[in-house]
Amino acid sequence: MKWCRFANDGGEYFGIIEDDKVIQVEGDIFGSYSKTGHVHNLEQIKLLPPIIPPTFYAAGINYPEHVTWAAQMKGEDPVLPDKADIGYRAVNALTGHEDPIIVPQDATEQVQYEGELVVIIGKECRNVSESEALDYVFGYTIGNDVSERTWQRGDRTMWRAKNTDTFKPMGPWIVTDLEPDDFHVIIRLNDQVVGEYDVKTAIFGVRHYISEMSKYLTLVPGDMIWMGTDGATENMKDKDVVEVEINNIGVLRNRVQWSK
Amino acid sequence: MKWCRFANDGGEYFGIIEDDKVIQVEGDIFGSYSKTGHVHNLEQIKLLPPIIPPTFYAAGINYPEHVTWAAQMKGEDPVLPDKADIGYRAVNALTGHEDPIIVPQDATEQVQYEGELVVIIGKECRNVSESEALDYVFGYTIGNDVSERTWQRGDRTMWRAKNTDTFKPMGPWIVTDLEPDDFHVIIRLNDQVVGEYDVKTAIFGVRHYISEMSKYLTLVPGDMIWMGTDGATENMKDKDVVEVEINNIGVLRNRVQWSK
Repeated sequence: MKWCRFANDGGEYFGIIEDDKVIQVEGDIFGSYSKTGHVHNLEQIKLLPPIIPPTFYAAGINYPEHVTWAAQMKGEDPVLPDKADIGYRAVNALTGHEDPIIVPQDATEQVQYEGELVVIIGKECRNVSESEALDYVFGYTIGNDVSERTWQRGDRTMWRAKNTDTFKPMGPWIVTDLEPDDFHVIIRLNDQVVGEYDVKTAIFGVRHYISEMSKYLTLVPGDMIWMGTDGATENMKDKDVVEVEINNIGVLRNRVQWSK
Repeated sequence: MKWCRFANDGGEYFGIIEDDKVIQVEGDIFGSYSKTGHVHNLEQIKLLPPIIPPTFYAAGINYPEHVTWAAQMKGEDPVLPDKADIGYRAVNALTGHEDPIIVPQDATEQVQYEGELVVIIGKECRNVSESEALDYVFGYTIGNDVSERTWQRGDRTMWRAKNTDTFKPMGPWIVTDLEPDDFHVIIRLNDQVVGEYDVKTAIFGVRHYISEMSKYLTLVPGDMIWMGTDGATENMKDKDVVEVEINNIGVLRNRVQWSK
């Protein structure tokens, strides 16, 4: 099943995508909902980030090659994380498929993509085992954890580096009933492949993160976990088009727009 | 004006407090709302965290004596932050006035209070000056940024240290039309004063944080900023009662409950 959130005639709605149609839905998409008689052409609606989460979790460093590359950039030895310490991003930064990534005037040229899997929680959970963890997943979507590397190194937190408005493109939609170990991520910059990796090579997988997090905190419907990226990343220039593709989900596409 | 959020007969509502009464409100408390005919006795309702924010911002280290104390604990020289880099906390951890702070079984004895001012944003803003910043504030409440210090030192992020469920008591209510420079914070552990400070001694004040944040991000109604604490903090034991008082707001009181 493919779920989207969209803007139409001044309102914001959830919808179920079937082929090239979007069936508008009312109610709680995680609980009791019903299809309405409003059906739209997918081509004609404006897709929004498919969910606004109560809490926006992010794994941060979670793939070996990305850790090695990031350490080399800083002239340090790579240190793999020894446990699944989850981090945070902020909802102000979310933006949809085909929306511009607007870079502030005072950013350096080191504005980079990080294409990654996004896990959407569907049911409240606390203290769940790894074998139960996927029962609490609603579905999967795609995220681009855009990062300004000089701010990331120099600021005490990652508030500007990763949470400037529009720095978190997400979408285009959420797909349910998929197996996270099968995902392959491909990142393209202006139609050139600049990175690809298998999600199952993550240091800590989806089951482990959910289980570990749930020992200390309650996950609720709509919470999301961005799983981190692998490999090296490159600078994006004004007007560049960045795409993140995950098999069986789709392609998230955004254009970079530098503020004058 | 005093605003609260409360549970009653299975529902959750906003209310306006007048003397010992709570007038139930419907609509958008930041926009168009109306008083209902439902009036409750303040003594008889269950107060909830007065807002669940879209984004939960926290200043972290923002008072000179707390920076000095924290550095001494680590055997390091104190380094005052040179700019207003905002951080994050998570809504899962919020809990109300008079709710227990439930400490996980595997926590060390170093579970400590941090009493602080909380700023609630009332209007959307982006790129506002310091002189305009307070126009976007809805009101003020009180927060206790409970922290497990060994996790805070050892984990890569502060997810367990500061965001374990119930580690963010907040309330009892939001008071509008106050001047942040006048606030004095008093922290009591089992009726003994264990810390007090003036909010105006912060390294970066409310106006500066709002203005700096708004250069990169959009603040929206309901967003909140926890302003950080000053001074040394102490361990809390099972059954301890911690209070944070701010003049003209009130007293936030919570009991510590260690998991068996």
